[in-house]
Amino acid sequence: MKGAVLYGPGDVRFEELDDPKILKPTDAIIQIVAACVCGSDLWDYRGINPVTQPTPMGHEYCGIVEEVGSAVKSVKPGQFVIGSFFASDNTCAICHDGYQSSCVHREFVGGAQATRLRVPLADGTLVATPDLPPDDLIPSLLTLSDVMGTGWFAADAANVKPGKTVVVVGDGAVGLCAVIAAKQMGAERIIIMSRNPARQKLAREFGATDIVPDRGDEGVARIKDLTDGLGAHSVLECVGTQEAMMQAIRSARPGGYVSYVGVPHGVELDGQELFFAHVHLHGGPAPVRRFLPEMIDLVWNRKINPGKVFDLRLPLDQVAEGYRAMSERRAIKALLIP
Amino acid sequence: MKGAVLYGPGDVRFEELDDPKILKPTDAIIQIVAACVCGSDLWDYRGINPVTQPTPMGHEYCGIVEEVGSAVKSVKPGQFVIGSFFASDNTCAICHDGYQSSCVHREFVGGAQATRLRVPLADGTLVATPDLPPDDLIPSLLTLSDVMGTGWFAADAANVKPGKTVVVVGDGAVGLCAVIAAKQMGAERIIIMSRNPARQKLAREFGATDIVPDRGDEGVARIKDLTDGLGAHSVLECVGTQEAMMQAIRSARPGGYVSYVGVPHGVELDGQELFFAHVHLHGGPAPVRRFLPEMIDLVWNRKINPGKVFDLRLPLDQVAEGYRAMSERRAIKALLIP
Repeated sequence: MKGAVLYGPGDVRFEELDDPKILKPTDAIIQIVAACVCGSDLWDYRGINPVTQPTPMGHEYCGIVEEVGSAVKSVKPGQFVIGSFFASDNTCAICHDGYQSSCVHREFVGGAQATRLRVPLADGTLVATPDLPPDDLIPSLLTLSDVMGTGWFAADAANVKPGKTVVVVGDGAVGLCAVIAAKQMGAERIIIMSRNPARQKLAREFGATDIVPDRGDEGVARIKDLTDGLGAHSVLECVGTQEAMMQAIRSARPGGYVSYVGVPHGVELDGQELFFAHVHLHGGPAPVRRFLPEMIDLVWNRKINPGKVFDLRLPLDQVAEGYRAMSERRAIKALLIP
Repeated sequence: MKGAVLYGPGDVRFEELDDPKILKPTDAIIQIVAACVCGSDLWDYRGINPVTQPTPMGHEYCGIVEEVGSAVKSVKPGQFVIGSFFASDNTCAICHDGYQSSCVHREFVGGAQATRLRVPLADGTLVATPDLPPDDLIPSLLTLSDVMGTGWFAADAANVKPGKTVVVVGDGAVGLCAVIAAKQMGAERIIIMSRNPARQKLAREFGATDIVPDRGDEGVARIKDLTDGLGAHSVLECVGTQEAMMQAIRSARPGGYVSYVGVPHGVELDGQELFFAHVHLHGGPAPVRRFLPEMIDLVWNRKINPGKVFDLRLPLDQVAEGYRAMSERRAIKALLIP
């Protein structure tokens, strides 16, 4: 089979790889129908996370089951499935509490920017669609694997509720998907912090009611202006930098909720500021598996269309261009079709 | 009147002060029936928070209303009342959400280690007992003003629920009161981290089921041993140091809850560690006012006895000895009777 391999900063190659095989009775092999490039892939691509050896890339996937191990019961060859970037048993105490991305048996699923993929713990990781999907639903179904699932977690972790005011910090694909989630959860007002006209437009289409282009202290002051001086009920930090995190914490009202769903890079929180901010803080790797059934239902019934975050569609063999376009911010998110 | 004034590190004096007066129509003047020394007073007493001018001390109080301003409706002279260390209007949006200690009109109530005290925003701050209390209830009623209210918030903010496993980090008066709160909220297992035999004994009396004397990595390992390797559902950090905070975060399971209720001193949180810990984090100055009615009811009906945290009882004019005894850890908490 063929797949994307990162050799070093800026150096993604599409090359011949060994075919995946069933290694454990709980594995499944799927034929990738669509994959994509994640914002978090760019930390590696840009050399911010050092790459020490050639690394098969990609962790967002959907596809057709080709083969399953002898212990797999819930999915079967021929089904269209979506899974999370963390494989989970979905039976341990942590999974039971809805934190499948911290499952005691979790395994990272890497190498999804390829024609085929081995998924461990298939029963606890993969969810099948009701039927084979029509082509136009495939981009949206793919987003559920990570970007939409992560946006959903951002809204869930920030306790978004009907009638509340929500701020989304970050207009990347996760932030845009977080707008979709906040809208679904009934938020009355959804403020996105964005300076990019194309992303602002998509945010409005997804349900944003206000746009704040200011950042830092000015951005915070603008949010206070929009919320009777109090701050928002829920603030969703979808970037992972110190500036974004502090902007999020300072934009929330006392007793409010701040979520953070992008891996923090260089973020340090001052205990005393956090104490007097009086906010709830929750985040981490999104437990996508928890939300998959509900999200699949919403996409299947065309209630949400997160596939619109893909503004670049490429054949999988042009994966390197997908990385370049996203790294240069020419594209929000690149869809890759084998 | 007379009251305690801090002049500098280790220098508390009991001296003649101006009588408090009604300054605003929303004020009340109360005659202090009992006051005490707070763990947080020790930050000033030890010079860790610099004292720049002679400062009247004390923020935990209960007493008899002497006089009220013309706008005060809910309390009247002759009633026995308890209030929080932050005065609140109890009507703003933040109070409505239960965060009275971040009320938009909040004022810190200082100078309670005295014979009389002015309490601002009396209607939103003070809660009267059903009747004049018997003497033996006074210590417990006094704790509701801060230490028990703060322990209650620790348990509430860490989402303590029936059947869950709770860890309390810190065996000071707040930690011990947090044990009482966790027990009231139905925790099945309450583990306190303590090395002090007298405090361990009191913790057991309050409802602790397990004692862990180890600290740091060893303490965390011991908690994991006691929780099937997963960590606790709820961890209540009742100290305010970096060591205690990290011990708390690392003792919680993914998806678990960590609260912190002591003003953090020198605490810095690494964003990436917090992200992968996958915990909920919430804390800040305890919104005591939210819990006062329920806590008064529990004390009044002798369901809880937090007054036991006072292991030193002094006449108010010996307040300096109260500070010394607590600073030297000879006493858990000093009760002061005018």
